[in-house]
Amino acid sequence: MRTQVGIIGGGPSGLLLSQLLHRRGIDTVVLEKHSRDYVLGRIRAGVLEHGFANLMREAGCGDRMDAEGEIHDGVYIAHQGRMDRVDLARHTGGNSVLVYGQTEVTRDLYQARADMDGVVIHNARDVALFDLKSAAPYLTYAKDGATHRVDCDYIVGADGFHGASRKAIPSDVLREYEKVYPFGWLGVLSETKPVSPELIYARHERGFALCSMRSQLLSRYYIQVPITDTAAQWSDDAFWAELKSRLPQDVAETLQTGPSIEKSIAPLRSFVAEPMRYGQLFLAGDAAHIVPPTGAKGLNSAASDIHYLYHGLVDHYLNDDDAGLDAYSEKALARVWKAQRFSWWMTNLLHRFPDSEDVDQQLQRTDLDYLFSSDAALASMAENYVGLPY
Amino acid sequence: MRTQVGIIGGGPSGLLLSQLLHRRGIDTVVLEKHSRDYVLGRIRAGVLEHGFANLMREAGCGDRMDAEGEIHDGVYIAHQGRMDRVDLARHTGGNSVLVYGQTEVTRDLYQARADMDGVVIHNARDVALFDLKSAAPYLTYAKDGATHRVDCDYIVGADGFHGASRKAIPSDVLREYEKVYPFGWLGVLSETKPVSPELIYARHERGFALCSMRSQLLSRYYIQVPITDTAAQWSDDAFWAELKSRLPQDVAETLQTGPSIEKSIAPLRSFVAEPMRYGQLFLAGDAAHIVPPTGAKGLNSAASDIHYLYHGLVDHYLNDDDAGLDAYSEKALARVWKAQRFSWWMTNLLHRFPDSEDVDQQLQRTDLDYLFSSDAALASMAENYVGLPY
Repeated sequence: MRTQVGIIGGGPSGLLLSQLLHRRGIDTVVLEKHSRDYVLGRIRAGVLEHGFANLMREAGCGDRMDAEGEIHDGVYIAHQGRMDRVDLARHTGGNSVLVYGQTEVTRDLYQARADMDGVVIHNARDVALFDLKSAAPYLTYAKDGATHRVDCDYIVGADGFHGASRKAIPSDVLREYEKVYPFGWLGVLSETKPVSPELIYARHERGFALCSMRSQLLSRYYIQVPITDTAAQWSDDAFWAELKSRLPQDVAETLQTGPSIEKSIAPLRSFVAEPMRYGQLFLAGDAAHIVPPTGAKGLNSAASDIHYLYHGLVDHYLNDDDAGLDAYSEKALARVWKAQRFSWWMTNLLHRFPDSEDVDQQLQRTDLDYLFSSDAALASMAENYVGLPY
Repeated sequence: MRTQVGIIGGGPSGLLLSQLLHRRGIDTVVLEKHSRDYVLGRIRAGVLEHGFANLMREAGCGDRMDAEGEIHDGVYIAHQGRMDRVDLARHTGGNSVLVYGQTEVTRDLYQARADMDGVVIHNARDVALFDLKSAAPYLTYAKDGATHRVDCDYIVGADGFHGASRKAIPSDVLREYEKVYPFGWLGVLSETKPVSPELIYARHERGFALCSMRSQLLSRYYIQVPITDTAAQWSDDAFWAELKSRLPQDVAETLQTGPSIEKSIAPLRSFVAEPMRYGQLFLAGDAAHIVPPTGAKGLNSAASDIHYLYHGLVDHYLNDDDAGLDAYSEKALARVWKAQRFSWWMTNLLHRFPDSEDVDQQLQRTDLDYLFSSDAALASMAENYVGLPY
């Protein structure tokens, strides 16, 4: 098989790029290790930057998102027993975020790819990358007992942190940065009405909590837990009790509880691999970088990679201009690091660190007091939360 | 002896308060442990917030400051081989800082106190505080072989970190917060033309550096050094070489060097004691809080205490209103903690931490990249640097 752009990974990044390129007449093949049901079964992020939403619209996949997604032009931060609101719209000249689950994004993209007879190969195992430094790189994968080959002009590695793409870059070229936080997030999905129409990030002496949602019928709550905890240790009752203890009393009193339909613990990690280009291979999304979830920058950082890659590939194929591709790694990383910075800042702002002393906690409280006393600080928070410009 | 307000400490805070109160007809006595020459010989800060400069003017002590001090409406940050400027005036609607040495401030205040026959008792040793919870507190001190007593309505402890005032608050009332940084600043004063008309804060892989000045003929330079170093270990030549290595090349090339006329190492510490009032005692300045010098908030935080105390005492004596004094500790601490927050942020932004990993350094570089890419971030930095409103 031959294609112009071979895309490894059928998550939202790979599908979005495939769809965007297709609409500009550029041919792609998407290889996905798992089944479509598996991919759609993953519970992930749900807060989309306005820039990401625009990319979905440009890909012709924005209709259901715009009909069912919810525009949030503010978020709350609960601290010291009170709730303060960050007015995203006011502080960014009208920008906002869109709450629409990653699962829904992926579903819409699959539908769009199917409608256009896009080639998405599921259960493509043992993907391997070859001749990346040549003009004729290719991929192989195993399926149905045979090994298949895809010849490409370019390869895009959108296959996540554990994928083959990043590992195909020689270790003397690749530089990796990593920070592991000494706690995780225990997340619960429940079919209950969200406690607040907007997200609530809570800083509390007992630890961080987040009240989020996928829709007005589906709540997503998180509490900071020791990384050594397991989800099985936490009964639903224990989870709800701990969550309530970290919220202002009037919020806790109105919290609707119910059975969890998903419960899991996610670690918090900052990770960046540089460069994001090696020969004809481009990395995108989790293959190159992971952020802690505070600030909702994971999927959105992937989207910004796709934005740069999409424009670079269009310029290459349609305008005979390689400047965008040549600058890809540098431009993508500049924005990736800013998203890392924001996620790290917001993680530090809101979490209880095991080794934190009284002075650290008081500085943290002051950071929040200062934030809500300063238009400049709020504007800085807001411009990062809605997404820095591409 | 009897006075309305007994002030312990004849540094700038104590003298400023004494002078301000005097002009409103409130009687003070200032006790200073050291000689006047000793106090004036101390090399300290030199960057005054505009609010502090206004207090000096209100005290009738602003003439020489306004004639000889230099208005700085910007500061530079050197990083990654380049210089970026924070335009303080643009980002704060016209505010600025005034470069005028603490020594000069103190000299002007002594002159003013002398002109008004203010009582400033030097070489007052073994100051002790009594009956702070009563309506009739008093001070004692030793001088010329005798013990003297000063009866007061109120006592102000402006006697620095090592003074007797804070120690007079029972330990079950006092809460202390402290953070000690794992490095110090080696400072050199030299009679050379400053390398830049505005301050340069430098972040470098080798460590932080600061190019400051007391006047256009007197330079003050600092480099971050291990806290275990001694000033004696550092020859002038070694100091200049290290300083140059941390500055952008074009700046280093124009740096004028010369003999040091003062050379010392200062530790970096964050310290706050709460509450700042105990009975009839009010703490002010270093007696209650120390900031790391990054951001120049030490003397300026003392000035904000004096502002609140001055207005509280005036309201008490002239308007029969104790609200200001009753709120003193809370109001002063709210601003003190914000100054602590800023100093901690700026220290983290610019110093090389011994245990920092690659990812921390890259996040630090990104913090600076973000700062200079965002009007909101610059406005936040600027409003703190010129001084938050009282």
